[in-house]
Amino acid sequence: MSRKKLVMKFGGTSVANLERIRRVAEKVKIEHENGYDIAVVVSAMSGVTNQLVGYVDQLHPLYDPAEYDAVVSTGELVTAGLTALALQNLGCDARSFSAAQIPIITSDYHSKARIKDIPSDTLEASFKEGKITVIAGFQGISEATGRITTLGRGGSDTSAVAIAAAIGAERCDIYTDVDGVYTTDPRIASDARKIPNISYEEMLEYASLGAKVLQTRSVELAMAHNVPVQVLSSLTDHVGSDHPGTLVCREEEIMEQQLVTGIAYAKDETKISVINVADTPGIASDVFVPLADAGVNVDMIVQNVSANGRTTHMTFTVSGREKALAIQALEGHKDKIQFERIDTDDNVTKVSAIGVGMRSHAGIAAKMFRTLAERGINIHVIATSEIKVSVLISAEYTELAVRALHSAFGLAAEK
Amino acid sequence: MSRKKLVMKFGGTSVANLERIRRVAEKVKIEHENGYDIAVVVSAMSGVTNQLVGYVDQLHPLYDPAEYDAVVSTGELVTAGLTALALQNLGCDARSFSAAQIPIITSDYHSKARIKDIPSDTLEASFKEGKITVIAGFQGISEATGRITTLGRGGSDTSAVAIAAAIGAERCDIYTDVDGVYTTDPRIASDARKIPNISYEEMLEYASLGAKVLQTRSVELAMAHNVPVQVLSSLTDHVGSDHPGTLVCREEEIMEQQLVTGIAYAKDETKISVINVADTPGIASDVFVPLADAGVNVDMIVQNVSANGRTTHMTFTVSGREKALAIQALEGHKDKIQFERIDTDDNVTKVSAIGVGMRSHAGIAAKMFRTLAERGINIHVIATSEIKVSVLISAEYTELAVRALHSAFGLAAEK
Repeated sequence: MSRKKLVMKFGGTSVANLERIRRVAEKVKIEHENGYDIAVVVSAMSGVTNQLVGYVDQLHPLYDPAEYDAVVSTGELVTAGLTALALQNLGCDARSFSAAQIPIITSDYHSKARIKDIPSDTLEASFKEGKITVIAGFQGISEATGRITTLGRGGSDTSAVAIAAAIGAERCDIYTDVDGVYTTDPRIASDARKIPNISYEEMLEYASLGAKVLQTRSVELAMAHNVPVQVLSSLTDHVGSDHPGTLVCREEEIMEQQLVTGIAYAKDETKISVINVADTPGIASDVFVPLADAGVNVDMIVQNVSANGRTTHMTFTVSGREKALAIQALEGHKDKIQFERIDTDDNVTKVSAIGVGMRSHAGIAAKMFRTLAERGINIHVIATSEIKVSVLISAEYTELAVRALHSAFGLAAEK
Repeated sequence: MSRKKLVMKFGGTSVANLERIRRVAEKVKIEHENGYDIAVVVSAMSGVTNQLVGYVDQLHPLYDPAEYDAVVSTGELVTAGLTALALQNLGCDARSFSAAQIPIITSDYHSKARIKDIPSDTLEASFKEGKITVIAGFQGISEATGRITTLGRGGSDTSAVAIAAAIGAERCDIYTDVDGVYTTDPRIASDARKIPNISYEEMLEYASLGAKVLQTRSVELAMAHNVPVQVLSSLTDHVGSDHPGTLVCREEEIMEQQLVTGIAYAKDETKISVINVADTPGIASDVFVPLADAGVNVDMIVQNVSANGRTTHMTFTVSGREKALAIQALEGHKDKIQFERIDTDDNVTKVSAIGVGMRSHAGIAAKMFRTLAERGINIHVIATSEIKVSVLISAEYTELAVRALHSAFGLAAEK
């Protein structure tokens, strides 16, 4: 009978220096003794990738992404070899693999490649030899050109989940510098609790709201292949089999579902209002098609009710770094859209209540609005999805709003 | 008609930082405009490989050489990508290759692999597309295992010469931090001259004497495949086609052959004397077989004339780092060799006069001994080859001996 399989992924801070790499090896050894065949996926030592990106930027501002990938993919090769050595030093049989050696086959869209296939033969053969396999994360090899690709920042999470899917791992443990996903930011609400179990859908909302715990694509991939993913700290003595972190899994596997799982917020939002456009059919498409064409991701949208029946305002939010692009796109189509002016406001925060329980329970939005109203917090824009209610408020109220909602939805740790 | 081909190799100090990599790109561009298809071979940025070796040593003193190679081969990948970017920034069409992508096929003797084959298809195809190809030096891929190998310290010289042989390059230019091979060390003799042309055989004597200009294996390879190799500085404005350096080539191609080309010296020598061994047939083999079995490279050997007809002394030299190994090997066979004791002397220097012209000319050794005798310099050991006379002297006389011989053989620059 073949052994159960486990993927253990360690991010840049977890392999920041030789001492931490030794600790990584100790954790891997413990899990190997727990009876797992193990694939270890490692990032570059923290700071290394940024240094390499800096070199590329300085040499060629409009760099060739294939050469960018050739350069920035090297940091993970170093960590993979060093981790294998640290394991050998503990008496474990281990070897490192580059993505090309597995191979991790990707598209040839350099610097943002997508994984297409991971044949499991190499890994299976390595397991059969009793070896712990250490794999360089973040990278792949283009099927079309044979060149090295990278998966975008945070791509090692995606490497790990894809490998877990390929080998049918029982779980993919993502070791990082936080010990799990919290009901809200503990720096704002000191009574925030670690969430033991969270659904893929909820985690996706967290990730896209800037919780930065897991790369969004890795969660999508885990959901598609039903890979349980645990987020846990590499800085404690625990290993994944102790279940110390937050397990991201299917909704059905979470016994006691909360109505609201957590309160997230995103400060990097800009509100853009297109003032006095004609209140006619097709005006929304006149505004948003140019934005889509320019590659701007529009988030929340509201169209004001027309006061005079002739003109109205279109308001929407974009992430701060796309603000200039959005304004450029709109100004370029001023003749068609016929707006009076564009107003912008960077001083806003999006606060969201997230929970799959909302699907079967009304009144979450109402409770949210009432809680904010009681604190005198004005809501600029509202957006809802099946498992989320988001409001845009003035940035100065961020902490007050987060704490009030965290408490109102009963998320605080018990005293 | 296909264009003529050139290999340009740049060592660690030549690519030490982004500014130097930009200068490398400028030189390559000039040679490309001179009408060459160009393969650029690069080392790691200076210091990088030492850092990586340090990591490996600290993690596992008795490291797995395959993992060592996986780690230390990454520095060249970075430089190759950055050099391609710097070339693109000058408007040149360029791309980088890892050794695995060419492929540079080697034995699987990790950390000291030997190149077995370099199929030229990939490089030819790249040239046909008009591309300057930049190749990571020092590394290869094992035919047997598919794992990354390295060629030993200084191995990028060997990479460059092997690639030049594979593509039939007109010349292999080795850019480094010296501007050629000198008649002797200019720090000792200020009137030392740069040698414009030197034979492979003479260069091999220089390299093995610690002149450190070219890796010995690269010279052997160049000689076997008749690849002209030029040693030149990357820090001047010259390029190889200006012929500013020292050209290493076949003896027949050097018009005016000097009797003696240069005076080399090696300070890292230890003299070992095995005192009072029986003066019987077979005693030399009793002494030197154990040394060979222990992997000790013995250089100069002298057996004293026996004074009493019963016992004698065996004296030989080894490099300083093999001294302990040599003594251990001898002590381990004391029962068989039956020596009284072992004397050692680190305070010695080997000084050599080198020149293919000696083959057809007697009297070089005599002139050398007389020159040293006139300065009162005692000779401990003498060794000769077809193109070299070496003497072992006390280290304190090194500079005096080198200057005297340099002058006696007419090597000094004309005033």
